[in-house]
Amino acid sequence: MHRTHTCGELRTNHIGTQVTLSGWVQRRTDFGALTFIDLRDRYGITQLSFNEEYNKELNEKARSLGREFVIKVHGEVIERSSKNDKIPTGHIEIKVTDFEILNASLTPPFTIEDDTDGGEEIRLKYRYLDLRRNAIQDKLILRSKLNKAVRDYLNNAGFIDVETPVLIKSTPEGARDFVVPSRMNEGQYYALPQSPQTFKQLLMVSGLDKYYQIVKCFRDEDFRADRQPEFTQIDCEMSFVEREDILSTFEGMIRDVFQSVKEIDLGQIPILTYDDAMKRFGSDKPDMRFGMELVDLDDVAKGNGFSVFDNAESIVAINVKGGNTYTRKELDAFTDWVKRPQIGALGLIYCRVNEDGSLKSSVDKFFDETKLKLWADQCTSEAGDLILVLSGKTDKVRKQMNELRLHVGELQGLRPKNKFAACWVVDFPLVEYDEESGKWHAMHHPFTSPIPADRDKMQTDPGAVKANAYDMAINGMEVGGGSIRIHDKQLQKRMFDLLGFTEEEAQEQFGFLMNAFEYGAPPHGGIAFGLDRLTAILAGTDSIRDVIAFPKNNMGRDIMIDAPAPLNADQKKELGM
Amino acid sequence: MHRTHTCGELRTNHIGTQVTLSGWVQRRTDFGALTFIDLRDRYGITQLSFNEEYNKELNEKARSLGREFVIKVHGEVIERSSKNDKIPTGHIEIKVTDFEILNASLTPPFTIEDDTDGGEEIRLKYRYLDLRRNAIQDKLILRSKLNKAVRDYLNNAGFIDVETPVLIKSTPEGARDFVVPSRMNEGQYYALPQSPQTFKQLLMVSGLDKYYQIVKCFRDEDFRADRQPEFTQIDCEMSFVEREDILSTFEGMIRDVFQSVKEIDLGQIPILTYDDAMKRFGSDKPDMRFGMELVDLDDVAKGNGFSVFDNAESIVAINVKGGNTYTRKELDAFTDWVKRPQIGALGLIYCRVNEDGSLKSSVDKFFDETKLKLWADQCTSEAGDLILVLSGKTDKVRKQMNELRLHVGELQGLRPKNKFAACWVVDFPLVEYDEESGKWHAMHHPFTSPIPADRDKMQTDPGAVKANAYDMAINGMEVGGGSIRIHDKQLQKRMFDLLGFTEEEAQEQFGFLMNAFEYGAPPHGGIAFGLDRLTAILAGTDSIRDVIAFPKNNMGRDIMIDAPAPLNADQKKELGM
Repeated sequence: MHRTHTCGELRTNHIGTQVTLSGWVQRRTDFGALTFIDLRDRYGITQLSFNEEYNKELNEKARSLGREFVIKVHGEVIERSSKNDKIPTGHIEIKVTDFEILNASLTPPFTIEDDTDGGEEIRLKYRYLDLRRNAIQDKLILRSKLNKAVRDYLNNAGFIDVETPVLIKSTPEGARDFVVPSRMNEGQYYALPQSPQTFKQLLMVSGLDKYYQIVKCFRDEDFRADRQPEFTQIDCEMSFVEREDILSTFEGMIRDVFQSVKEIDLGQIPILTYDDAMKRFGSDKPDMRFGMELVDLDDVAKGNGFSVFDNAESIVAINVKGGNTYTRKELDAFTDWVKRPQIGALGLIYCRVNEDGSLKSSVDKFFDETKLKLWADQCTSEAGDLILVLSGKTDKVRKQMNELRLHVGELQGLRPKNKFAACWVVDFPLVEYDEESGKWHAMHHPFTSPIPADRDKMQTDPGAVKANAYDMAINGMEVGGGSIRIHDKQLQKRMFDLLGFTEEEAQEQFGFLMNAFEYGAPPHGGIAFGLDRLTAILAGTDSIRDVIAFPKNNMGRDIMIDAPAPLNADQKKELGM
Repeated sequence: MHRTHTCGELRTNHIGTQVTLSGWVQRRTDFGALTFIDLRDRYGITQLSFNEEYNKELNEKARSLGREFVIKVHGEVIERSSKNDKIPTGHIEIKVTDFEILNASLTPPFTIEDDTDGGEEIRLKYRYLDLRRNAIQDKLILRSKLNKAVRDYLNNAGFIDVETPVLIKSTPEGARDFVVPSRMNEGQYYALPQSPQTFKQLLMVSGLDKYYQIVKCFRDEDFRADRQPEFTQIDCEMSFVEREDILSTFEGMIRDVFQSVKEIDLGQIPILTYDDAMKRFGSDKPDMRFGMELVDLDDVAKGNGFSVFDNAESIVAINVKGGNTYTRKELDAFTDWVKRPQIGALGLIYCRVNEDGSLKSSVDKFFDETKLKLWADQCTSEAGDLILVLSGKTDKVRKQMNELRLHVGELQGLRPKNKFAACWVVDFPLVEYDEESGKWHAMHHPFTSPIPADRDKMQTDPGAVKANAYDMAINGMEVGGGSIRIHDKQLQKRMFDLLGFTEEEAQEQFGFLMNAFEYGAPPHGGIAFGLDRLTAILAGTDSIRDVIAFPKNNMGRDIMIDAPAPLNADQKKELGM
């Protein structure tokens, strides 16, 4: 037997017990005649003591142990003379009577500590060592707990966990598929799913009523810092539901998850329309941890001879509470920040609200204090605040102001990682027009139904049609989204038609789904949450790589196993390449 | 709102309640003035009634409803005049006051009944309709329950659910990999995992201690009736364990699963050595639902001038309890059965034990009754039994007798689908010699450790080395297997060496694992269960296709979505093909 207890288990009530522990040497403290070792496993750290007085040979042997050696020790639990209140096992130690080296260790290429000295590249290469660090291991454990909380909720709500296939068919629409050549069917390919969308809809046609799956999905994209070619979705679908049923079911799920994983009550999740979200936050995934909402200054800032404003479609402000403390230099830095190509603003106007109530702007030439007072009133600014103003095309200026709001919010400490605020965004446009291709594109996907009242506008005014769709955002990041689906073959045809599919294309790619709709498809809808992103938010990390056991790097490579890699000649031949 | 209740929910205590139900028209019974409809959803069936007397128009409309139409009805729960005790809702019906057709249905290509008239091909093509049948839907629900039971047990036992990557590296050893061309790294390929073996071992190196995952695995094999290119494993690994720890943990899991899913106590699971299993059952996955064990007749049947026996390495019998009732014609059929090429026996000897105790064999010429008495004694045969005897090379004759035992057991009704018997088989050979290639092959895989006592024989007598491995069989089918792994780089090298890997090959394919072993790898071991097979056994079906929502056919095709399929030219170009 390798252990009677784990390294996180022993307390003062075990004093006097003979125990066997196994684990890793975290730290050795060598006082010559006296040696202490911190023995580590997933469950904690237990101090081992060796004393020359009792056993000279054993103490010598202990002095030879290096970091990360794996040992099995036998001894008695004794009270510790100098207690450590920071760890649960800090009141006891093991007086070791015997031990065995189970495996030696080379010196690790970086320290196995919360604050490691290893860079990302080397830590990815030795991911199995990086995973020994609590900082990472705790995140995997949190992910496992989250997973369980989600399943518990959905199982209790009567959802059935069904696996859908991974080897499916390529649909050239949307993001790029990873494909898999079929040896048995030369010249033909499977594709890996970007989501189980059509399968979960077919499960509704099959009467399964409530489906869920926590499932790997795949997207062959040009990788950005925080994208992975394989990612995990909490994928759900329900029959005989309307939007409100979905929202309440999954508000319940998310609140439950936060409660069981973080003991946090998220509270009721507010519902914003897409138009509202864009107007108030300039974003369809607003960070609701703080206010600083966008204020429309059109009425009070136009027509004063300042051509930048006069020619702008929209003038938008935010009021930074207590922001008058920013120096001129800091304000200039904001201007530089919004002028970077990523944001693309031409300039930034500010107006200080001084402690004495006087107002001072960067456009005093055009706006006297009476006029600035109108700005301040519109923004409900108070003494000590700062008003920041951008202008231009409405869509663009809102997006820019969203970025600035998040940036200033970050600086102001309004976006702490241990605070969480969720919201629903609903009533998205069904389709958006792409100037370049001259085509309408589905904002979500082609299976999303229009809001019933807007159906008739699909032919006459597609851009005005709202989708019966919903997204959930937490802390300014999209964590989930879905829609009430089309379940009617004729409507689905009209949708494909609107998106520029020929009848043949629609039939070839989604014929099986449209056929299925002819055999009694129920009304249905669903949602999918990004498990990686949700875990990262709960874990308080910005990178989803931190919550994936073996992530790929920015080039889609696993540098630990060195994949992808060339095939050998036999394999190529068998695949007819 | 689409429903206030499901179709399986209403009872006599709901009488008088106004309800809304949605579901499918299972059956319409038309009495002209009176129409009854069975409305179906996942939860059950509720009878709807329409009466010309109350509402002529509505009754007429109801008479137009076809099978599988989706409707939403509103009405009052009333007591049923002719009660149906076979279904939980059989004492009530809905007096419908209004209904709406949510979707029409074409006539399904086969009947949606437990006993359908559809062949397998058409049912696979319209799988979404096949899945409406209780016979299939119940199996998916059972699978979901099994899944939950497994997770509950493992979560409670401190296992962490960790996802390992799907896009990994090809290892040309073993079965064929499915590969995925990388667009970002032209000429390079990912492979889909045949199992997460190396990753779960790395998780042990990382100190995760107890890992599990229910995960899709992939194997590009020539498909047999009951193989799927993608299949699901319950994959587990533990650190600081010996064989007994694994056996007791997973005996607990399997017993727990049977208890929670089927309310069956499997009892303690017996442990057989491989040698014992082969000797007693001729199989390393014996069906323990019944006895009829193999009996060695060498001592009592050799040296009587019957050259078939005299020249055989082994003479093996089974005693068929009450088998003397088989007619001569039936015995001839057994002989034909064992002579088929799949079995390959040259003949079958029998000996009847008559009701009066007299013995009558097919080889009376060589064996008089005194000699046959020795057979009967060896087989502990009683009046009315039948002894069946095969002879030949030991390995071959045992396998043949295993097949015959299963065949006769089936005929005798000794293998009912609702009876379950599990066993562990341990002490497998580590390697087996392949005459053709002149190489030793790993019986499990190259990461399996030899039993400590046998380590030194690895160089001198590889064939005699036992593996520290274990399989679990239920009802004669392998459901799981695993081993205590090698965690020592030197031993792993010796193993690769024995299997004929050059140092370069070993380094290229598994270098990352062997490197990991140098940084304090703990002793560890694990197991994987086939979820598809386990579900099929619990569901009492012979085909794993019945427990997979969207299975592929024997050619690895999904005939519903028609995959695999050719790629379009753009996709090929992007992939550099």
